[in-house]
Amino acid sequence: MAPTTQVQERKLDSNYAVTKALKCNPVLSENKISIRGLVGGLLKKSNPGKQLISLGVGDAAAYPCFRKGHEFASEAIAAVGASAQFDCYPPSHGCPAARRAVADYLSIGVTIPGITVRETDVFMMSGGTQAIQVCIAVLARQHSRSNLLLPRPGFAPYEAACELFGVEPRYYDLVPQCGWEVDLAQVRNLTDSETVGLVIITPNNPCGVVYSVAHQLQIAETARDLGLPVIADEVYGHMVFGSNKFVPMISYAHVAPIITIGALSKRWMVPGWHLGWLAFTDPNGALKKIRAATEALMNVTAGPASIVQATVPRILSDPHQEFHRNVIRLLESSADMVYQRISKIETFYCPSRPQGSMFMMVELNTKALSGIRDDMEFATELIKEESILIIPGSVLGLKNWVRIFFGVPIELLNEACDRIESFCKRRQLKANGMI
Amino acid sequence: MAPTTQVQERKLDSNYAVTKALKCNPVLSENKISIRGLVGGLLKKSNPGKQLISLGVGDAAAYPCFRKGHEFASEAIAAVGASAQFDCYPPSHGCPAARRAVADYLSIGVTIPGITVRETDVFMMSGGTQAIQVCIAVLARQHSRSNLLLPRPGFAPYEAACELFGVEPRYYDLVPQCGWEVDLAQVRNLTDSETVGLVIITPNNPCGVVYSVAHQLQIAETARDLGLPVIADEVYGHMVFGSNKFVPMISYAHVAPIITIGALSKRWMVPGWHLGWLAFTDPNGALKKIRAATEALMNVTAGPASIVQATVPRILSDPHQEFHRNVIRLLESSADMVYQRISKIETFYCPSRPQGSMFMMVELNTKALSGIRDDMEFATELIKEESILIIPGSVLGLKNWVRIFFGVPIELLNEACDRIESFCKRRQLKANGMI
Repeated sequence: MAPTTQVQERKLDSNYAVTKALKCNPVLSENKISIRGLVGGLLKKSNPGKQLISLGVGDAAAYPCFRKGHEFASEAIAAVGASAQFDCYPPSHGCPAARRAVADYLSIGVTIPGITVRETDVFMMSGGTQAIQVCIAVLARQHSRSNLLLPRPGFAPYEAACELFGVEPRYYDLVPQCGWEVDLAQVRNLTDSETVGLVIITPNNPCGVVYSVAHQLQIAETARDLGLPVIADEVYGHMVFGSNKFVPMISYAHVAPIITIGALSKRWMVPGWHLGWLAFTDPNGALKKIRAATEALMNVTAGPASIVQATVPRILSDPHQEFHRNVIRLLESSADMVYQRISKIETFYCPSRPQGSMFMMVELNTKALSGIRDDMEFATELIKEESILIIPGSVLGLKNWVRIFFGVPIELLNEACDRIESFCKRRQLKANGMI
Repeated sequence: MAPTTQVQERKLDSNYAVTKALKCNPVLSENKISIRGLVGGLLKKSNPGKQLISLGVGDAAAYPCFRKGHEFASEAIAAVGASAQFDCYPPSHGCPAARRAVADYLSIGVTIPGITVRETDVFMMSGGTQAIQVCIAVLARQHSRSNLLLPRPGFAPYEAACELFGVEPRYYDLVPQCGWEVDLAQVRNLTDSETVGLVIITPNNPCGVVYSVAHQLQIAETARDLGLPVIADEVYGHMVFGSNKFVPMISYAHVAPIITIGALSKRWMVPGWHLGWLAFTDPNGALKKIRAATEALMNVTAGPASIVQATVPRILSDPHQEFHRNVIRLLESSADMVYQRISKIETFYCPSRPQGSMFMMVELNTKALSGIRDDMEFATELIKEESILIIPGSVLGLKNWVRIFFGVPIELLNEACDRIESFCKRRQLKANGMI
């Protein structure tokens, strides 16, 4: 019954449409490197003689010190499981109780008259990543070649989603000398009639900055002048240190419409749950069509699992103050320590102490490092010799910088700093012909 | 600090890019109706005097009779929750244990030498819907205007994903007079150099047919001749009645490469969990680039929640025979009953008794029904008068047919048949001038 092997092979070799080169989007080609793909490659190179310390992907949930008081999460899942009440399809736009809980959470502390988030403004998403993809998919459809303003350095999934949905990413700079603030003049210059939005990440991954209210207002006013919605990525919302304050961008929704991207992932230490949201705060109805498109798209797309959504009201209804306080305390100590230690390494430049999130950016002086042409080579050599994983800035749009994740226990971070310091010293001595 | 209301309003009304019409993809416009969107609209019209019976969306998990022996599901989730071990990011392509469990599950009963499914062939997906979207997204990228062969009547998310990723859907007919078999001559005629795959759904939603091994081989041979991979949607795998047998399409992977789409949703009665998979069975490596593209795409996309993936090895390692036997027994009784009753209604034509899945298609004789121009009107009038929800065939590509979901308790289904019969009789008498 089966054809001869010969015929089959001929067909497979010569005729298979699927063997032809992938032409369209580089995100899906092998040339384009995603952070996760890159990390996979780097990890294979780590020094088997040294314990790996990852300052790469942002997952603090792996460490017990960040999980003090975290029982609420496992209890919520266990209760959902035991109830056997959440096996059916959830509504396409999210479970009403979860949407309401997120709306209430986003409204906390917002005191501008007329600015509220309602249940129907919130769409439950499969993590921040789906929120980014859905947002860009619906914004994309306004022009044949829409473009979107993204921060540089940035968060790679934005670029990936742009490529997936045929949107041109246009990068504005975050300026290290100005505390990583947005270059608003550049934002104005980059905008044209096919620009569909301005993405802002605060607290910022990868720079660790938390924008002041004055800068947030400037951003909103710039967006208003340009006729753009602000896409406010607040996945690290409330994760701020010291006297820094987190003010949600919807506080400026009377100036420009805001699309908020958020998630349980980081603040509640459950990144694997893939529970995020997209929320529209649009008092003047400027985003009516974008919201309708989101409704339509979610009608044909799987959002987060019902059993995860079912935990949201329980988790968000309790402030979990002790838990959050411990996390912030640990992150702040880590940030201070790594900033001080990294600042002392001659071949690094670290423009500012992190104010929030779990990340900071550090510039490399590659000229002073033997055998290191760029950040990619730095990351590769560092993991090969010291089993320390960091993210090369190139994948975030900033060559010869590196991103350091500091959501790791302080002893481990200290050990990582020792090894980075020793690596840099060796390479520096070699560059100076000393060894 | 905030601008004057006047300035703000002018900008919002005149300049907002986002208020411009959505141009590109109809799936995201309001003109295009998804099943879920349609159902939402129909439900609002139901007769408040009669209890709603939904023969619409396929979610049998809502009914206790289908949940006999279903404790394994809640126990699995509760155990995962209690362990507090699954909060971190899962690997992009899926948790190894879950991938392995699916690979083992898919390999059961496949006896062709050289045909196996390995852990790395399986990608964990957020339900069957994400599996469809990812599959089409990666297939799309081979040509500037790729096209994909879809069954008519079909499953609406395929069409939606085609629109989302710029693929032209080309429909081949399932022929009711030939037991809903694939019109293979038409498949050959529709294929050109930009065709990227042939989608087959068996057991079939919406027709309820289960393809014979002879027909499956014909399908595989046709795909081989055309140089196409078969996308085998087996979400209803093993859900077959009587003497019908479920044979997975990978049994023909030596003829043509197979991309299998599956999910826990239907067979394990957990559609809300959004746990699906995409698996490549490609002994000759024809899909190497497609698989690499899938890897790359999943590196920037959120798959299923870690806590859901963590249940998969436990759930798939036990055959749960009693549970499945009960479900099949109930579905088969329901299918037989509804087939017999519907066949007796004069204004309906029901070509064949369902052999599997949870659905059947019924043709309407609209000419014999007063005030019913088409299937849309039939569905609308039926829910308005009788509070019975069915899916009009138009949204599945078959005008003046309707889809009936029979995964409901038999008493309820009987009551639904009573009401459908009475509705049709009234409309028929009216058409004949009798009332």
